[in-house]
Amino acid sequence: MNKDISSAVIRRMPRYYRYLGDLLDDGIERISSNELSRLMDVTASQIRQDLNNFGGFGQQGYGYNVQYLYEEIGKILGLDQTHNIIIIGAGNLGHALSNYVRFEKRGFLTIGIFDVNPALAGGHIRNVQIRMMDELPEFVKTHKVDIAAFTMPKEKAEECADLVVSLGIKAIWNFANVELDLPQDVTVENVHLSDSLMQLSYRIVQNRRNDR
Amino acid sequence: MNKDISSAVIRRMPRYYRYLGDLLDDGIERISSNELSRLMDVTASQIRQDLNNFGGFGQQGYGYNVQYLYEEIGKILGLDQTHNIIIIGAGNLGHALSNYVRFEKRGFLTIGIFDVNPALAGGHIRNVQIRMMDELPEFVKTHKVDIAAFTMPKEKAEECADLVVSLGIKAIWNFANVELDLPQDVTVENVHLSDSLMQLSYRIVQNRRNDR
Repeated sequence: MNKDISSAVIRRMPRYYRYLGDLLDDGIERISSNELSRLMDVTASQIRQDLNNFGGFGQQGYGYNVQYLYEEIGKILGLDQTHNIIIIGAGNLGHALSNYVRFEKRGFLTIGIFDVNPALAGGHIRNVQIRMMDELPEFVKTHKVDIAAFTMPKEKAEECADLVVSLGIKAIWNFANVELDLPQDVTVENVHLSDSLMQLSYRIVQNRRNDR
Repeated sequence: MNKDISSAVIRRMPRYYRYLGDLLDDGIERISSNELSRLMDVTASQIRQDLNNFGGFGQQGYGYNVQYLYEEIGKILGLDQTHNIIIIGAGNLGHALSNYVRFEKRGFLTIGIFDVNPALAGGHIRNVQIRMMDELPEFVKTHKVDIAAFTMPKEKAEECADLVVSLGIKAIWNFANVELDLPQDVTVENVHLSDSLMQLSYRIVQNRRNDR
């Protein structure tokens, strides 16, 4: 049933999850869709529609049980499972990602970091060893790898994609600022930082024009 | 006129810009909307519609002049101007952003990096000095700052937002994984890395379910 859910809905689910987590931290046990709506700046009907895609979770006259909804959305997002990540590219961004302890709390574990720079060989980021790229095939054969994070330079990304796909990895978290050409059964999530910065500069320029 | 252009269109513009840049690098001088469509995996009518928001740029029977379109989209995105950036939070992500030389080529200049950790005071990332947060007000008074990049921990983000807004900064590039409460005239671009990772894990889990 979940196959037809639009990507816009999927994009909003992590945001619900974050807000519900904050409510839980604040000790709030239940919330109406109207209150959630005000908090999140989304219409209440949007919230109901979004959640109805997955079966609802609300109770007429009661609203949502925060803990229950948080856990259910967590399951929808696959956060009740562990996802092993390898990071390819041990530069600053690779360091930043592997240090993101927040990810670990949600079941994302960095189990390997790879680079081509021999100067980095044998080093560690937190407790994860930096390995050389030629060790990657053996590593993937002997470890369960769910996600490859691409933090290498753009020029190397397509070659790395071919490699990880050939090794059977089915998901790529791509920071390499290039669109990867991938088989249908491999899923990719792109984080194009420069696109994001360009959207910001678009809005800056627009605002200045409108101010004139 | 540009006020009403949808955010979906704006989101696609940097992607056009990237593809056109690649075409230029390959020495391609003109391209039809059909060829561009195939390359970018967007329908030709979508491309025409998107570009018509800004006045078209194509010529019947000729297609698009790559150099011209690249430059025009660059202007739309504000890339014909220089944007001065300060980075608040000199951790790994702050380092990664300030080292992103690619940004500089497009007119984004990191002119200051700020942190609260005294151990970092006086250090440099590339040629930019790391300053302490209490130097920020004076710095903003004496330098033109267009964008504040937020790479500090989530817990400090709201406080930093109040500060930079009070100093007159009108744009925030927010990596702090929290929704900021900002005045109408301040624009924000959020990069929620954990949301992105959760969307990826959603699709991984879906694919596994569908495989069964």
